Formats: sequence, C-alpha cells, structure tokens
Amino acid sequence: MSTETREHLTEEATSEQLGIGMRFSLHPHCDNFVEVILGALDDAASAGLTEHLTIETDDVSTYVGTGTEPAEQRLVAYLAAVVAAASRRSNGGHVVAHVLLSRGCPGEATCDLTVTGLPRPAPVEIEPTGVRAAAQWSLYPLLDGGDGDHMTHIEDAIAAAQRRGVAASPAHYATKLSGDVAEVLATVADAWAGVGTRVPHVVSHVTVSVGSPSTREG
Amino acid sequence: MSTETREHLTEEATSEQLGIGMRFSLHPHCDNFVEVILGALDDAASAGLTEHLTIETDDVSTYVGTGTEPAEQRLVAYLAAVVAAASRRSNGGHVVAHVLLSRGCPGEATCDLTVTGLPRPAPVEIEPTGVRAAAQWSLYPLLDGGDGDHMTHIEDAIAAAQRRGVAASPAHYATKLSGDVAEVLATVADAWAGVGTRVPHVVSHVTVSVGSPSTREG
Repeated sequence: MSTETREHLTEEATSEQLGIGMRFSLHPHCDNFVEVILGALDDAASAGLTEHLTIETDDVSTYVGTGTEPAEQRLVAYLAAVVAAASRRSNGGHVVAHVLLSRGCPGEATCDLTVTGLPRPAPVEIEPTGVRAAAQWSLYPLLDGGDGDHMTHIEDAIAAAQRRGVAASPAHYATKLSGDVAEVLATVADAWAGVGTRVPHVVSHVTVSVGSPSTREG
Repeated sequence: MSTETREHLTEEATSEQLGIGMRFSLHPHCDNFVEVILGALDDAASAGLTEHLTIETDDVSTYVGTGTEPAEQRLVAYLAAVVAAASRRSNGGHVVAHVLLSRGCPGEATCDLTVTGLPRPAPVEIEPTGVRAAAQWSLYPLLDGGDGDHMTHIEDAIAAAQRRGVAASPAHYATKLSGDVAEVLATVADAWAGVGTRVPHVVSHVTVSVGSPSTREG
C-alpha cells in the first residue's frame, strides 16, 4: 500500500509479480490452542509442505507467499494440511480457519497494474484429508474494468462449485460450501485463480469450520 | 446473488435498500467455547443492543442486518458488546472475531446498482469497552467506476485511522490496527461507510484478536 508506481507488465506475469499469497488464522476452540496451532504448523513443515514458501506469523495471522510455481498448489496444499493437522491434534474438536487469498496487489506496489498476460494456473489437486468442513466464502474481483460485471464472475464461480459437488448455497454476503477440507479449499482457490485469468486483482475470503457442534447437531 | 435486476435508485438509498449488514464469527480459544459464545450473545441482548436488528446464526457465522437507522451505529455497538462480553466471560482469555461488513449488494438482488443518492451516515460512537484488541483489516471498494482508483479510497481510510490514534501499519493484504475494541471497530466501520458515500458496493473484513498470548508476550 505504498505510493510507488509499478511498471506496467506486458508479458505473462509471474506469481511473484502478481503478489500471489494468503493470510490465514487458525482457531482451535480448546484450552490447549497454542499447542494445537504450533503442532499443526510443525506437522505441515515435517511433511515437506513449507518448501519454497515464505511464512511470516504475527500476533493476528500468518502470511504465506511464494515465488515458485505452481503457487496456488503450494499455498493450498500447505493450508489444507495445517487445518487437517489441527483437527487431528484437537481430537476432532472445533477448529476454524479464516483465510484471505490475494493476487494482483503486492504489498509493496500500488494496484494500478495493467497486465496483458495474466497466467492461467492449473487447477489445484490435493489428496482428501478425511476431515469434513463447512465453509462460507466470498470472492472479490477488484479491478474488473468498471463494467460492473463482477457478479458474472462470482456467479460463474458458484456454478463451478456446484458442478464439482462442493454443495454451494447462497447466504447474505457469502456462499456456503461443504465437503472435505481439501476439496473446499481447492474449489475456493480454483475460483480465485480462474477469475484471476480475466481480472488482475482478485481477493477471496473463506471461513472454514471443522468439528463444529452446530454442524454435528445439524 | 440471484439474477433479478434491481431498479435503479434515484433518491438517497436507505440502509435496507443498500443491504447494510454484517456477518461475524466468534472464536473463544477455550474448552467451554459454546458457553462463552452463547453467554456473550445473551449479554448483548440483555443490554438492549439487539433492538431493531435481524440476527440469524448458522453453523459457521452470524448474519446481522437492520432496516432501522442509524444502521452502522447499531451493528457496531452490538458487535463491540459481543466481543467484550466474550472476553469477560473467558476471563480475559484469547478470543477472536472475524467480521465482514457489507453495503451495496443485498442478497436478493444483483449488484448493478446505479445509486445517485448514497447516504452519508454519521460516525459511529461507542463507549470504550476496556478490552484491547489487535486487528487486521481489509477494505474492498467493489464498484469503483473502473478508474482503478480503489487504492486512493484505501489510502484515505488508512490515513484517517492513523489520525484517530488507532495505530495503523501496513502488512501484506491488510492493515494492522490496535486499540480498544470499540475504537478499532468504529474505525473500520467509519472507513467502510465513508468509502460508501462515493462507491456503492463496499465490503470490509476485519479479524479482531483480544487476549492473545502472542500480543501479551510482545
């Protein structure tokens, strides 16, 4: 969010140029939450999933970025592993992750990208975690050229989620998803990356809940 | 997110027409999280803060809307009370709230509003809660006319936050705020409503953390 102006990109932008990355926070609803969080982060690191990632944790959330392709795959594989590990470490208790995925607005530049070559990343592929999630998801195409068609992008993304079996139903300001943590996160990431092939700056937020007593009762 | 087209508004839009509202989720990091959440919601209701609000809780989050002015004031007063009550009920333990504030995209309409009379709501005023928060905040002007100046709105909002003493520093994809829960939430709401006087559809997300052991150590 500085005022430095970025040079316009004329070739296909890399993940690094687009500032592809995420912030997430992890919320185990238990007294030993510190142990669960640190253990889950360790588990993902031990599984080799932090390779080529830049990870910076502060007192509210964790930033994860990468300059190594495929960026989307690396980010989501790590995130799914962390959520699943936190679920296991809290014995299936209630854990929520809040995730912000961003592309097209790197922290150190203004957002006036004129990108003529937006990359077309491959769909994310992650093994099922065995952990079921209920999620609420929002998708924000931010530089959509002013024709006000951002709802088209969003409706396309929701239709795609329905086709892949991650049940999608509308709610105020969000879309509800449910399924394996890996499939929910892959759906969100593919939609975000897919809109990113047409719109330079795209942000998506998703709240992923596992082991909720409300869901179990429902 | 239906495909029904909304009639263009030519007078100053009401909060109801703009679909002003929020979703939030509350995460006490303790074994008795259900008791803390339900108790905090009860406390805010007992204090009369649910008057004129529509509140719908599902398994992931809670939607709050209102058709009664001043909408922003009602929403934020309720939210600040809930977060402070959850902090008290968990004896100052770690509680996180994730909040989505939205205006200009009601659930039952498409987002192609052409609003000629955007309202100018008064700043939110809430008594300090006595509970300190660390927060990360993102602001998304979604229908900004295609001139790509959404960073200007965001930079103005950050400058305003700095002026009012809610220390604001940049991070990847978010701005860090700290201060009393009430002042942090008022800052976020005023920025969101302020951009909403110029941009019809504005969303803001904020993660509000109280009682974090990381913050205490820092």
